[in-house]
Amino acid sequence: MKAIIIAIGDELLIGQVLDTNSQWISQQCNDLNIEVIGHRTIPDGVASTTDAIDRAFRQCDLVILTGGLGPTNDDYTARALAAYYGMEIVFHQATWDRLTEYFASRGRQITDALKPQAMLPEGVTFLENDMGTAPGMYHCREGKHLVSFPGVPHEMKHLFSRRFVPLIRPFLGKSRLIQRTVLTVGLGETDIAGRIADIESALPKELSLAYLPDIGKVRLRVSGRGEDVENLGSIVNQVADDIIERLGSAVYGEGEISLAEAVKELMVNKRLTLGLAESCTGGNISREIVSVPGASGYFKGSIVSYANEIKHLILSVSSESLNNYGAVSEEVAREMADGALRILNTDMAVSVTGIAGPDGGSESKPVGTFWVGIAMKGRHTETYQINFNRDRERNIRFVTVYVLNKIRLLVNEF
Amino acid sequence: MKAIIIAIGDELLIGQVLDTNSQWISQQCNDLNIEVIGHRTIPDGVASTTDAIDRAFRQCDLVILTGGLGPTNDDYTARALAAYYGMEIVFHQATWDRLTEYFASRGRQITDALKPQAMLPEGVTFLENDMGTAPGMYHCREGKHLVSFPGVPHEMKHLFSRRFVPLIRPFLGKSRLIQRTVLTVGLGETDIAGRIADIESALPKELSLAYLPDIGKVRLRVSGRGEDVENLGSIVNQVADDIIERLGSAVYGEGEISLAEAVKELMVNKRLTLGLAESCTGGNISREIVSVPGASGYFKGSIVSYANEIKHLILSVSSESLNNYGAVSEEVAREMADGALRILNTDMAVSVTGIAGPDGGSESKPVGTFWVGIAMKGRHTETYQINFNRDRERNIRFVTVYVLNKIRLLVNEF
Repeated sequence: MKAIIIAIGDELLIGQVLDTNSQWISQQCNDLNIEVIGHRTIPDGVASTTDAIDRAFRQCDLVILTGGLGPTNDDYTARALAAYYGMEIVFHQATWDRLTEYFASRGRQITDALKPQAMLPEGVTFLENDMGTAPGMYHCREGKHLVSFPGVPHEMKHLFSRRFVPLIRPFLGKSRLIQRTVLTVGLGETDIAGRIADIESALPKELSLAYLPDIGKVRLRVSGRGEDVENLGSIVNQVADDIIERLGSAVYGEGEISLAEAVKELMVNKRLTLGLAESCTGGNISREIVSVPGASGYFKGSIVSYANEIKHLILSVSSESLNNYGAVSEEVAREMADGALRILNTDMAVSVTGIAGPDGGSESKPVGTFWVGIAMKGRHTETYQINFNRDRERNIRFVTVYVLNKIRLLVNEF
Repeated sequence: MKAIIIAIGDELLIGQVLDTNSQWISQQCNDLNIEVIGHRTIPDGVASTTDAIDRAFRQCDLVILTGGLGPTNDDYTARALAAYYGMEIVFHQATWDRLTEYFASRGRQITDALKPQAMLPEGVTFLENDMGTAPGMYHCREGKHLVSFPGVPHEMKHLFSRRFVPLIRPFLGKSRLIQRTVLTVGLGETDIAGRIADIESALPKELSLAYLPDIGKVRLRVSGRGEDVENLGSIVNQVADDIIERLGSAVYGEGEISLAEAVKELMVNKRLTLGLAESCTGGNISREIVSVPGASGYFKGSIVSYANEIKHLILSVSSESLNNYGAVSEEVAREMADGALRILNTDMAVSVTGIAGPDGGSESKPVGTFWVGIAMKGRHTETYQINFNRDRERNIRFVTVYVLNKIRLLVNEF
């Protein structure tokens, strides 16, 4: 089954609101073996909606509408559906009763302003909305399915999963999508493409391989679709395994986990604790670590020593090093890491000092210069210099990924 | 001028990547007086791209493509443009030279794997990409404009603003968009709507007023479009001034500045220094402060005391308070702020301790409970309890906005 998702709303076309519904619905469709062949965003209006439905049905079997349902004047979907199917718009008592009940359950009185929400096309199947006031609608004619959801994300998700999936499942075939996503860090797209060129050129024709780059990271998605799930699964696995073996330590996981989650798993498993001393990153590494629930299992804290005075006072970085080498130097990075290890009393402490930009660069230390120090109990403190050449935000994000990856690689060796 | 934005990529259609480009481009078009009449998302492929271009040009004068340009095998845009316009694909020496230079500037050697990025349609205008490897492309035939950008957001934004806008501006009419955006914090949409109901109902018919909510903040955009720029400007100003006066201290600025920028301006002007003691926010407040260049003018650092041990060891929070009241308590928030003021040696120190979730809540302290402490030299330390009721990420972001706003309001009084 092929589907097109149509998001309705002027607010989307002027960029006032970001459409996240189409992505979520695409993920669900992908899992259900519905192939999404397009997204469309269209203006509010009956004509634009019927026109978009008409065009979409020339290419697909399922049209999924979001938005254009609700209590305000700019709700056109119900009228557009009635126009498209040649149905009457009638007062729908069951929907009105639900609305009345919904308001009552929130201790509020329903008003006539909501009447238009109960004026609905006669003959469609209504999808009861437990999360809000606007029902979804479903209709099938001549093998072509149409479903319409309100634009509010949590209402749409509820209606999709609870009401729509049971209706559509009987129409779906046996073909399944099989995929694995390999998560890499520290290599660019081009590097990866070079390293796995032979695997890629020998890719079985049933499979596809996609590169999904993010700052400092690339996800590689191996996927194939077909009915012979077992065979497909085995060739997807073979290719994914080959890629993982080839890329070695650049692979930090599979699926949807974040780099910070991978680090947490490792640290907790090895029963190691971590502390940080951050300067230019201003707490971003700590923030990233703490975004994972349960980070307290290994993370003790971070000294964000933005001012040199704090590097000296709290982390005991020597005035000599600060004066002789500057805050962005190997010596200061080392002393920051050593200081953090001592005062945070952890097994490992990592420091970062650098010039995020846009100001503060010099010829010998341009914007994007970073020093990282890694101290561990009973080991020699290691330091690394790196240079990124980006804007402030991206420099900070890059070095965060770099540091998390350094921690991962070091702890992996234990 | 009417435009359709086409995002290319299978990764969008299976929901693996969220398309944020179309929203950003829509905003820019809106400002430029280009009416965006649709967004499309289409699969990778030459045929699907030429087909989408062809369909779009039947409805609009400008087609904006994103994605499908880059170093890997799944890049179809250049070939699609060549096919659509009947151009040859040729090796483009200038692009290759730029690529070589780009790599050299990063201390890397270019490889033949990048050759396909210099194979481009003959006769289009190339948009030089200072942020990455893939150039943009622009072509105009018979009054129909087409522009193509790589999918990486910061490269696309750079090429749009720096390269594309100067090319398209001569084709745009005299009508201008005049707008002012009033930035508020601490009030909900409904609160604001109630306070400015009379201003809104008396809004001149040429103007529109939009509410753009974000976590803890609402932007109010007053805008009008027309050729009489002077008159339009004066009525936009009148309305914006009325709103600012009415909303008083909830207004933290205008335009695009962030709350952290507003705080920086205030603190630097008043020559005050700031330190933080963060627990559950894990450095997010510090991170937000440091996102503003020049934050070092007032910000000294943050003690991210994620573990209780660190609250005690570094911030000198008493074991009694931690044991008797728990880490999320008024006493601990106060002692954290006092400790930070002392050891960071600042004029002001702010602490946050709370339960971000999903775990760690209890009946008396549910997830979303936060205590904030504000210490200042020579003043009694103030504490505030707040409750948000959201997921981990949003709780952290809410309390960050809350804290920045508290700092702003307090310093404003000085």
